[in-house]
Amino acid sequence: MTVLVVGSVALDSVETPFGKADEVIGGSGTFFAASASHFTKVQLVGVVGSDYPFHKLDPLRARGVDLAGVERAEGESFRWRGRYRHDLNSAETLETRLGVFSQFRPKIPDAFKKAPFVFLANIDPRLQLDVLKQVEKPQLVACDTMNFWIESRRSDLIALLKHVDVLLLNDAEARQLTEHNNLVKAARWILERGPKHVVIKKGENGAFMFTANTVFFAPAYPLEDVFDPTGAGDSFAGGFIGYLARAGKLDETHLRRAVVHGSVMGSFAVERFSIQRLMEIGETDIRSRLEDFRRLVAFEEELTA
Amino acid sequence: MTVLVVGSVALDSVETPFGKADEVIGGSGTFFAASASHFTKVQLVGVVGSDYPFHKLDPLRARGVDLAGVERAEGESFRWRGRYRHDLNSAETLETRLGVFSQFRPKIPDAFKKAPFVFLANIDPRLQLDVLKQVEKPQLVACDTMNFWIESRRSDLIALLKHVDVLLLNDAEARQLTEHNNLVKAARWILERGPKHVVIKKGENGAFMFTANTVFFAPAYPLEDVFDPTGAGDSFAGGFIGYLARAGKLDETHLRRAVVHGSVMGSFAVERFSIQRLMEIGETDIRSRLEDFRRLVAFEEELTA
Repeated sequence: MTVLVVGSVALDSVETPFGKADEVIGGSGTFFAASASHFTKVQLVGVVGSDYPFHKLDPLRARGVDLAGVERAEGESFRWRGRYRHDLNSAETLETRLGVFSQFRPKIPDAFKKAPFVFLANIDPRLQLDVLKQVEKPQLVACDTMNFWIESRRSDLIALLKHVDVLLLNDAEARQLTEHNNLVKAARWILERGPKHVVIKKGENGAFMFTANTVFFAPAYPLEDVFDPTGAGDSFAGGFIGYLARAGKLDETHLRRAVVHGSVMGSFAVERFSIQRLMEIGETDIRSRLEDFRRLVAFEEELTA
Repeated sequence: MTVLVVGSVALDSVETPFGKADEVIGGSGTFFAASASHFTKVQLVGVVGSDYPFHKLDPLRARGVDLAGVERAEGESFRWRGRYRHDLNSAETLETRLGVFSQFRPKIPDAFKKAPFVFLANIDPRLQLDVLKQVEKPQLVACDTMNFWIESRRSDLIALLKHVDVLLLNDAEARQLTEHNNLVKAARWILERGPKHVVIKKGENGAFMFTANTVFFAPAYPLEDVFDPTGAGDSFAGGFIGYLARAGKLDETHLRRAVVHGSVMGSFAVERFSIQRLMEIGETDIRSRLEDFRRLVAFEEELTA
């Protein structure tokens, strides 16, 4: 089944202890689409400026991502410049230039309005709500957010939650949103406000998925070389929703497997700059890492390792 | 099979956001013994001062912990005073009074020298090595350490590693010891220096176990109320070694299950002050939490949750 994603399409300049990348393609919509495209058809809605090297999105198109919803507006593209220090855990933002993204009003093309799966990547909750008004009864609505919106658009975000099936956010955001330090309590707070599932991502420390009466945990795959963490969260979301859209099932078992697929896709994303690694890998790589992942957490059957 | 543990037997005074405890029993040897006693016979070697309320160790004795190796020396007992802030992740040490522990020279009673499983809790690596000289060919030697010894007794610690089968330490200690920020690299560094297994504990973020060609991860059980984190690491070690001693098998499968048992026992320890919760629980509680744990990470079979 098709996934519609609405998010940013940006140009990232990133410094890590391992190298530098200048003006490479990035943005939440881009990473999500690159990841989800391994599982299903993706429709991307976003905006770029007149200076955007649009041909750099060709690999996405080649993977079946429909770019008809990526508007080209007069002006500068969204640019983010950041740096990761030695521990790679948190990005230091050196510069954010919103450009045309500051005036972004998502217009969902008619051909996209029936998408059964919708992912609202991290944009203003008012725009996220507006997207939901434009689409026709999706089977699953998932959304992400960030500290900026939790602070500046708190009531809009809480209003949005009523219409969201799965909220994905990181642990710091969950704590900030709910004012609970304990993640079990934070999850319950969120589940009382609309979502049936909440996925709390903890970066290199894995991810929890909570429902009203279950909890699931998947670690992050332990990589020897994390090259650039940018986009890991959106790639996680792409694997999560992409897998569900392919499976077409939304029961607990498939949602758990979706978290594992999210973790696997996040682990690929961080192995290179931009969406490079996500564009290199194929089904065999994904299946092989899923198997590595299964071994990583297996303790019930007899092992011969 | 019997487990010999050599460690501290202390009096802790702890403040958490949920309450205060004054001069309750603590220490690495005590927590380890309390936890491991659920699985097997434990022999405890340590030292207390003449002021120690020795009868407070009666619950340990009642659970089959042999206290014949706990020496009573003239002077003050080891006291630790600490505080946990809201996030409960790191203890702030307010006061450490080593007392008789500063002169501790472990003397292994003859009756303990044949213990097939030995746990060297966090003491001076020179004393840990000295313990190994006193015992007779144990099947498994596991040891813990801390930042203080990594700094002040680095070469002794590295010399000790040659005689250790399993090193248990936390992520900060692993990074400090190996000077690798990446835990996969840190683990390899350690595995090259003696231990066949290294368990890297990450507190509320779970634990990794590495061997030369495998890696296993177990999350920490997500509790809604973490009351007092003191002793979680030693209780983890008690569950880990205790389970192995009961199983009597040291293959990869049993070592993985041992990590899960460690995680389960750590999760009980933090539910009350001191060893209180570890003394309350029984086999049914442990089995029930193991089942919760299995559900926490299960994603392969069809679930009906």
